[in-house]
Amino acid sequence: MVQTLFNDQKACKKLRHILKTFQEKKYHLKHLIQNKNRLKNFSIKTDGFFYDFSKQRVNGELLKELFQLSRETQTRKKFSQMVSGKNVNTTENRAALHTAARDLIHDNMVIDDLDILSELNQVNNSINSFTQKVHQKDITGSGGKPFTDAVIIGIGGSYLGCEFVYNTIKHSMEPKIDLYFLANVDIDNFGHIIKKIDPETTLWIVISKSYTTTETMANLNQVLLFLNNNNINPAKHIVTVTSKGSPGDDSSNKALDSFHMFDFIGGRYSVTSAVGGLPISLAFGFDIFKRFLKGCHQMDLHAQNEIEEKNIPLIAALISIWNSNFLEYPACAIIPYCSALSKLTPHVQQLYMESLGKSVTCDGQILDNQTGVIIFGEPGTNAQHSFFQLAHQGSPFPVEFIGIIKPAYNNEQAKSKGVSNHQELWANMIAQAKALAVGKDDQNNAKYFTGNRPSSTIVLNDLSPESIGMLLAFYEAKTVFEGFILGINPFDQFGVELGKILASDVRDQIEKKNNDEAYDFSSIDPSSKFYLETLFKGSL
Amino acid sequence: MVQTLFNDQKACKKLRHILKTFQEKKYHLKHLIQNKNRLKNFSIKTDGFFYDFSKQRVNGELLKELFQLSRETQTRKKFSQMVSGKNVNTTENRAALHTAARDLIHDNMVIDDLDILSELNQVNNSINSFTQKVHQKDITGSGGKPFTDAVIIGIGGSYLGCEFVYNTIKHSMEPKIDLYFLANVDIDNFGHIIKKIDPETTLWIVISKSYTTTETMANLNQVLLFLNNNNINPAKHIVTVTSKGSPGDDSSNKALDSFHMFDFIGGRYSVTSAVGGLPISLAFGFDIFKRFLKGCHQMDLHAQNEIEEKNIPLIAALISIWNSNFLEYPACAIIPYCSALSKLTPHVQQLYMESLGKSVTCDGQILDNQTGVIIFGEPGTNAQHSFFQLAHQGSPFPVEFIGIIKPAYNNEQAKSKGVSNHQELWANMIAQAKALAVGKDDQNNAKYFTGNRPSSTIVLNDLSPESIGMLLAFYEAKTVFEGFILGINPFDQFGVELGKILASDVRDQIEKKNNDEAYDFSSIDPSSKFYLETLFKGSL
Repeated sequence: MVQTLFNDQKACKKLRHILKTFQEKKYHLKHLIQNKNRLKNFSIKTDGFFYDFSKQRVNGELLKELFQLSRETQTRKKFSQMVSGKNVNTTENRAALHTAARDLIHDNMVIDDLDILSELNQVNNSINSFTQKVHQKDITGSGGKPFTDAVIIGIGGSYLGCEFVYNTIKHSMEPKIDLYFLANVDIDNFGHIIKKIDPETTLWIVISKSYTTTETMANLNQVLLFLNNNNINPAKHIVTVTSKGSPGDDSSNKALDSFHMFDFIGGRYSVTSAVGGLPISLAFGFDIFKRFLKGCHQMDLHAQNEIEEKNIPLIAALISIWNSNFLEYPACAIIPYCSALSKLTPHVQQLYMESLGKSVTCDGQILDNQTGVIIFGEPGTNAQHSFFQLAHQGSPFPVEFIGIIKPAYNNEQAKSKGVSNHQELWANMIAQAKALAVGKDDQNNAKYFTGNRPSSTIVLNDLSPESIGMLLAFYEAKTVFEGFILGINPFDQFGVELGKILASDVRDQIEKKNNDEAYDFSSIDPSSKFYLETLFKGSL
Repeated sequence: MVQTLFNDQKACKKLRHILKTFQEKKYHLKHLIQNKNRLKNFSIKTDGFFYDFSKQRVNGELLKELFQLSRETQTRKKFSQMVSGKNVNTTENRAALHTAARDLIHDNMVIDDLDILSELNQVNNSINSFTQKVHQKDITGSGGKPFTDAVIIGIGGSYLGCEFVYNTIKHSMEPKIDLYFLANVDIDNFGHIIKKIDPETTLWIVISKSYTTTETMANLNQVLLFLNNNNINPAKHIVTVTSKGSPGDDSSNKALDSFHMFDFIGGRYSVTSAVGGLPISLAFGFDIFKRFLKGCHQMDLHAQNEIEEKNIPLIAALISIWNSNFLEYPACAIIPYCSALSKLTPHVQQLYMESLGKSVTCDGQILDNQTGVIIFGEPGTNAQHSFFQLAHQGSPFPVEFIGIIKPAYNNEQAKSKGVSNHQELWANMIAQAKALAVGKDDQNNAKYFTGNRPSSTIVLNDLSPESIGMLLAFYEAKTVFEGFILGINPFDQFGVELGKILASDVRDQIEKKNNDEAYDFSSIDPSSKFYLETLFKGSL
């Protein structure tokens, strides 16, 4: 059966009808939020997670139609199929089982003769045991010194989620092992990191499912040379996180240890697998990682079990679609009023844009609607002093604010203007959402604010591992829900392939020149030829 | 005389006409770039700076009309007026003289009886002398220990540019003094930094023109408490960068020293003033800062003197307007294939979005056209493994690639697949621009790439201070050119005011509650009331 295109969904037709009424003045946010029950009716609280969509451009009638859209597209059913291990990644004929990675209490899930949970638990047990030995100094560097630092060699999904979780927890907890991230193939990324670490006390964690990722292998080769030049035995300093049977899982590699990752968890959804598990456990202990998983699991259960009307990530997905496909906003800014969450946006940027930056349905029909939008952002209040001028007086885009009730720092603090810094932070977050919504009339057009600019606000109790887990799993669930509603596959990424193929062509040209100084790039297009000549010349 | 609205410019009418033809298949980039002179005709090289716009959706006829638009809007004349100190910031009745800050050889510029260059030189001399004394340990901390670290207390324009320059240079040069940036009023920003520094060897640099910026003063108060608790004399550990006569310029403040900033240089254009000058000189020496200024000046001269057809930042501005106002792209991604430039995007995000996120002309007419767009980005190749899926197969946006011919790291290196890491980096940059432009047909729609996605490529020789200066000044000039063409004021930022006013209202409520536990927030709107109650309750 041919999949119904998004724009042909019955609910979409009704939504387009409602859209017309939303041009009327009475639907300006400054009026909508006047209703004294607005917040109560347009917010949801679950244990430790609050989601306020009262300042989105929605009303009751519209929400009903959005919920209808979710039902028409069988979104919750698809989510359940995902959780139970069905082949929801249809183009790659795979399950998408990131939720299983945190399902610590579930007792049975066999897919293709593989006992998923037992496999995942086994990996977690190895991580627990390995990190304990490192922390207890039973495993040390080749010279006998304990490990103090670890460098993750991995790119994209093999580091962004982990970097977010590590950086956030680091604000409230001293790491046992400091982490660095060697992602970019840029040699200056390598050069910068080796200035900061002592090779004798550094563990290198190579993360690549296939163990063939170009950037990761190139960086691994730099590291092997570096270790060799420093008389360090790599077999005592390198561990791998990779697929069973990949070149990195080969015992002849002489890695200290290997931890498995699986086809049924995609890179951008993998921070709760060994990809995040090993680094986070090394940094803070396996117990902290487990608490993080617990938070994820709590949100997973919420996403799976709550009906449309009470389902936070599903409502967030529906509003995102309303904003992108009907109100036609091209982007969404994530603005955590929390420095510790500064790496959340780069992670969600990948998670969301790589999952939803598609133009075809799951069954290969070309879509005529908007899919994913641009995600960007910086922490508040910094963002207020940066691009918020445009948010208030330029082309509008929705904003997702995030507030944390209890900051990590709790020593003695000064007050300014009668309030603590944390209170000042919240005063600003509250004020920005309001300013965007209500705007301000002014005789002077330069000081006139149109308002009617939508935002959501998420509130978490604290920066505990559980809270961070909920936040991560919220964005994962929101993303897959949005994919299911749009009818696209949020798990593949064919759009990255063309660049790889063309890079390989260019690399071949460079290799030829490396091997033969007289080679003149004559078989490549003039533009590429110019760039390669410039690179080899060494200056403009 | 009433200003002509952008859309009423004669050239704009012609551009709209040309736009129609650009829908024809023959104008797909895959065809346009076939012309063997394409790169030659659509690129410009100046000393140490190369700008390639051959993969933008432009042709000769169109460019002529864009140049005409520039002439109609007297863009170059306005730039010269800016450089010569005219009141180009009309809404605030001020000059915009960031270019003067690097005009080290110019001998005379008197505005309102102030000899601008002599004032700027005097500040630079003080910076030079102060930093030399710090480096030579003639100025030390209150306990006699030499300074090893400096924390910049400043937000927005008082740190983003400096952070970019510092981080970039740090990749090729060991800092004499390590810099940290305390921008956010979030107490966890403060808490995170004090874990990294030793109060006895740390200098605090308070940067605020008015010395009343809420965040900066709140952070200063935390620092004063921290110093007091550590028995450190603040008068020996704090310097200020502020306006003449501001509260921070008051000798009763007992700061170690004060360096002046001026009304005629706006925050986001201020990195070449004392705002960047003091921190960069402390980190790397005044000579490095001077070399950076030299690079800026070189680009300033280019921007001021080159005719439309050869003017790099002006062409970049015109293409940006073509992309935003005619091709209707809502954003532009800046993708440096260079880890060291990872803080360029946050800086340009502020510079560009705060300058151009406006909806009124300089004379206060409301505009009906697009002004600034969203700027975002991450370094390549990282971005390829993050959001480039969407760049290739989702809603298109233009990309600005940046390549550096010589990386900073030059020790022994491994090769992978026959090429060095730096060569691999370039292979990817070349391939991505091509892939976006040409796309790829495929029977399988999931593997089909539309192509016709525009990009520019900037190439610099290296990461020298001069090169970084050129890059910074390129983005400044591009931004002001774009403002001049659109007819908006790129120097004011009234859009940040409403949030400040509303935050002040919320702060007052918090203060009342701090002073009187029984206070019940009854005078504020229900939504704000809920958030404040939650904050005071301490959990959801």
